[in-house]
Amino acid sequence: MDTDKHAMPVLAEARLTVVGLGLMGGSLAMACKQGGLCREVIGVTRRLETVRLALALGAVHYATTQLVEGLSGADIVVLAAPVRTIIHQLGQLATMPLRTCLLLDLGSTKRNIVTAMQTLPPQVQPVGAHPMCGKETSGLAAAEPALFQGAPWVLVPLPRTSPQALELARELALAVGARPLVLDAERHDRLVAAISHLPYALAVALVLATAELGAQDDTAWTLAASGFRDTSRLAASDVDMMLDILVTNRIAVGEALARASAQLGRLADLIARGDEEALRALLSHAKAQRAPRFPA
Amino acid sequence: MDTDKHAMPVLAEARLTVVGLGLMGGSLAMACKQGGLCREVIGVTRRLETVRLALALGAVHYATTQLVEGLSGADIVVLAAPVRTIIHQLGQLATMPLRTCLLLDLGSTKRNIVTAMQTLPPQVQPVGAHPMCGKETSGLAAAEPALFQGAPWVLVPLPRTSPQALELARELALAVGARPLVLDAERHDRLVAAISHLPYALAVALVLATAELGAQDDTAWTLAASGFRDTSRLAASDVDMMLDILVTNRIAVGEALARASAQLGRLADLIARGDEEALRALLSHAKAQRAPRFPA
Repeated sequence: MDTDKHAMPVLAEARLTVVGLGLMGGSLAMACKQGGLCREVIGVTRRLETVRLALALGAVHYATTQLVEGLSGADIVVLAAPVRTIIHQLGQLATMPLRTCLLLDLGSTKRNIVTAMQTLPPQVQPVGAHPMCGKETSGLAAAEPALFQGAPWVLVPLPRTSPQALELARELALAVGARPLVLDAERHDRLVAAISHLPYALAVALVLATAELGAQDDTAWTLAASGFRDTSRLAASDVDMMLDILVTNRIAVGEALARASAQLGRLADLIARGDEEALRALLSHAKAQRAPRFPA
Repeated sequence: MDTDKHAMPVLAEARLTVVGLGLMGGSLAMACKQGGLCREVIGVTRRLETVRLALALGAVHYATTQLVEGLSGADIVVLAAPVRTIIHQLGQLATMPLRTCLLLDLGSTKRNIVTAMQTLPPQVQPVGAHPMCGKETSGLAAAEPALFQGAPWVLVPLPRTSPQALELARELALAVGARPLVLDAERHDRLVAAISHLPYALAVALVLATAELGAQDDTAWTLAASGFRDTSRLAASDVDMMLDILVTNRIAVGEALARASAQLGRLADLIARGDEEALRALLSHAKAQRAPRFPA
């Protein structure tokens, strides 16, 4: 019996390599290093200035621009990049000399990534992951070790993933303060289309509509207050990240957009017809659905 | 020559009566009383428990449920209620013994209110007003004297409004920390439809669409994170207030909804067709319009 086949390292003794030191990867590296959660935290990043910044911020023990070097001896590998970059990196990893390790990604959609994970070498235990947190600011400079506190952290095991690997992934999520939650990739993608990608699209549509009016009357922007600021916040999200999300989750995003457009049309119709009774019922329903779930 | 016709009281010596002690009226009363901006601050409210709360919070010197009593001797009258309540109150005021005074309202739409102000007795100097601030919480318990700090405060003078009255209104806005801005009613209503009423409608559509999916899979709500929270915040707004806004600004809201729906359709089309180049250009444009105006 091969006792090593499902053996996973202990989190506290693991060498953790985070590939991609943006907001999410940088925050995870910081949380693990500063919290002493792992034996060693290594960062891999494309740019030399990010290597320097990561060291200056104390986000890692060591950082490099060389993927092979960074992965050497890693017990846990975390890919933290836009979705299609992760898929590209998974292809690169297939040809690299990796030891027995847990491999997580932090990508925002899961179906395509989990498919790409199927080609990883057998000693690699893959788990798709998605911490549900973020800010409209991106990059290592915005990273903070507390980013994951209280956030849902979706885990998507593959059929090949051992229970031990899933357990280690769950342990890592808990250690940084997140709330792990196992979902399959399809369900994850359908749900985040509704609660994350749709809000982004609505924020973008709001900004574009305002820009249209603002081009005629700039005072529109002067009057925009806290309500506008909050509703439009996601429109400032990183474009590369969002483009990858929309392209790799096209069908589910299309369905979510259709649902929201239908509701918007329904509202517009009731307003145009002056049907106050139905309008009041609909607005009250929305308030009743929203208010108790997010207390002020 | 009637020298009294255009005479307005000095702010510091004025008796200010605020009719309606909700979030806006309550905050204005607090700012004026606690900042010592007026000689006396009187509150008028429908419910006896709000009279008690206003006194307990130190929001007013005196409060009453009787409109005639509260208005007696007032130098500045502020109507702070949902739009159609204000219009009803303006009708009541036409028959009341008022001295020479400035009359402001804090309603969210201005066209119908300014029309109703035309019937006020001649010694009343009316100015439509709209401080662009607010929270999704409502009521006196949520009031705070700093609510108006830095907020645009729209002023809409009527043809009958004297320059002295407009100046006093401006002085009051400045005294509570707001930034006064004179607009005509039509323009105000068109602009707030775009930057305030549309964000509300988008937030409502988002919540209704999520509730639709959430009815099948409740985990949608579990995953909803800060992006969803912010984009949907306005859906928790006071329904009475929003209903009055949508009904009294029907045309402009309809136009704003049409602009946003068209932009949403454009996004959906580019996503469905996988036109990455055009999609990237549109998302980048939205980010460029939004980000510099609301620094993180």
